[in-house]
Amino acid sequence: MDETRLQQRIDYRFEDAALLRQALTHRSAGAVNNERLEFLGDSGLNFTVARWLFEAFPREREGVLSRLRARLVCTETLAEIAEELELGALVYLGPGERKAGGHRRESILADTVEALVGAVLVDAGVAAMESLVQRLWGERLANVDPRSVNKDPKTRLQEYLQSQGRAIPEYHLVETAGAEHQRRFYIDCAIVGGETVRGEGTSKRRAEQEAAQQMLQRLGVDDD
Amino acid sequence: MDETRLQQRIDYRFEDAALLRQALTHRSAGAVNNERLEFLGDSGLNFTVARWLFEAFPREREGVLSRLRARLVCTETLAEIAEELELGALVYLGPGERKAGGHRRESILADTVEALVGAVLVDAGVAAMESLVQRLWGERLANVDPRSVNKDPKTRLQEYLQSQGRAIPEYHLVETAGAEHQRRFYIDCAIVGGETVRGEGTSKRRAEQEAAQQMLQRLGVDDD
Repeated sequence: MDETRLQQRIDYRFEDAALLRQALTHRSAGAVNNERLEFLGDSGLNFTVARWLFEAFPREREGVLSRLRARLVCTETLAEIAEELELGALVYLGPGERKAGGHRRESILADTVEALVGAVLVDAGVAAMESLVQRLWGERLANVDPRSVNKDPKTRLQEYLQSQGRAIPEYHLVETAGAEHQRRFYIDCAIVGGETVRGEGTSKRRAEQEAAQQMLQRLGVDDD
Repeated sequence: MDETRLQQRIDYRFEDAALLRQALTHRSAGAVNNERLEFLGDSGLNFTVARWLFEAFPREREGVLSRLRARLVCTETLAEIAEELELGALVYLGPGERKAGGHRRESILADTVEALVGAVLVDAGVAAMESLVQRLWGERLANVDPRSVNKDPKTRLQEYLQSQGRAIPEYHLVETAGAEHQRRFYIDCAIVGGETVRGEGTSKRRAEQEAAQQMLQRLGVDDD
């Protein structure tokens, strides 16, 4: 896929093609890179999603909106969107970063999506940026469910323990396995006066959630 | 000063006066409060300042822009702006918070400014919000100097020590004195193999900067 197809896929055509090129250029590839656009796009994205949530959920409290936004703009979600756009193949990397598999690295992919949002803002203004975010996030926005905020296993485990007057759980990374782009994380979740359970996942966050889920089952809060 | 004068002072007249009232209402005063507007205004403010810096300083790197923004939108700056607007007298507080001097508390004042930014966004859109921020920040934007970023004592101390191959300094809060709205903080700055110096200030950040400044003088980096 080339840059023309990327523009078709995001349904946005740049007035200034150099901006798109810059958004796709990692700092390892040169002095004219996407760091400034990423700074701008990060704040534009946070703003767009905050505004969307504020309007879509007039009765939800600030805490719920914050958590929904955190999930919508986290590195994992951004990297997923980058993969849907097949951005990895289009990112310009320096030779070292390319050899190290940088085009598959979550953080680089996520930053590139932010830079793309920033580039559209510079190219055509706030309304164009907001439309882009709505297109790229698509179903993720349509499927936002405020009730799901509390369904997060780590949150539920912490709330359950606190409701019992018990200490919050501790998480420890015990092992990292696999090559760079196939990393597996193993994390133990321990509670005072209880057993320790282990979670596994492709990110630390996922491994922690998995461990928390196991703990909720062990404690009988969730069914197996 | 009443709400009419506040609107004159910020040079913005609300279509929906209830929005202004809500922006001025702390959560201690009731269920219809400014928390949601603060969430929205916080991201709107960060976005506005990021965009302004991006355009004003086309040659500065992302790191410089980030640090300039952090200074422009920190609690201290927001509270200063609240004081210039004499917002404290207009904030609706619950009885407990009022007795505790909440109308002088930095965090409440800062949150109220963010809520005001959010309220203008809801009332009239992005352009009105951006104009408001430019008016409220005024000279602070006009006087932004990217070179000043490195003049921050903590940053300079850290960079100096790193350039010498030494460990970064440690800061410890040793004492907090005074009543709620006249708090003084005392913070020690320690470096490996060196003396410890103490800074004092009306916020932790100020006390740390003061301690770092003393350390720079002690090390002979700065003149006394």
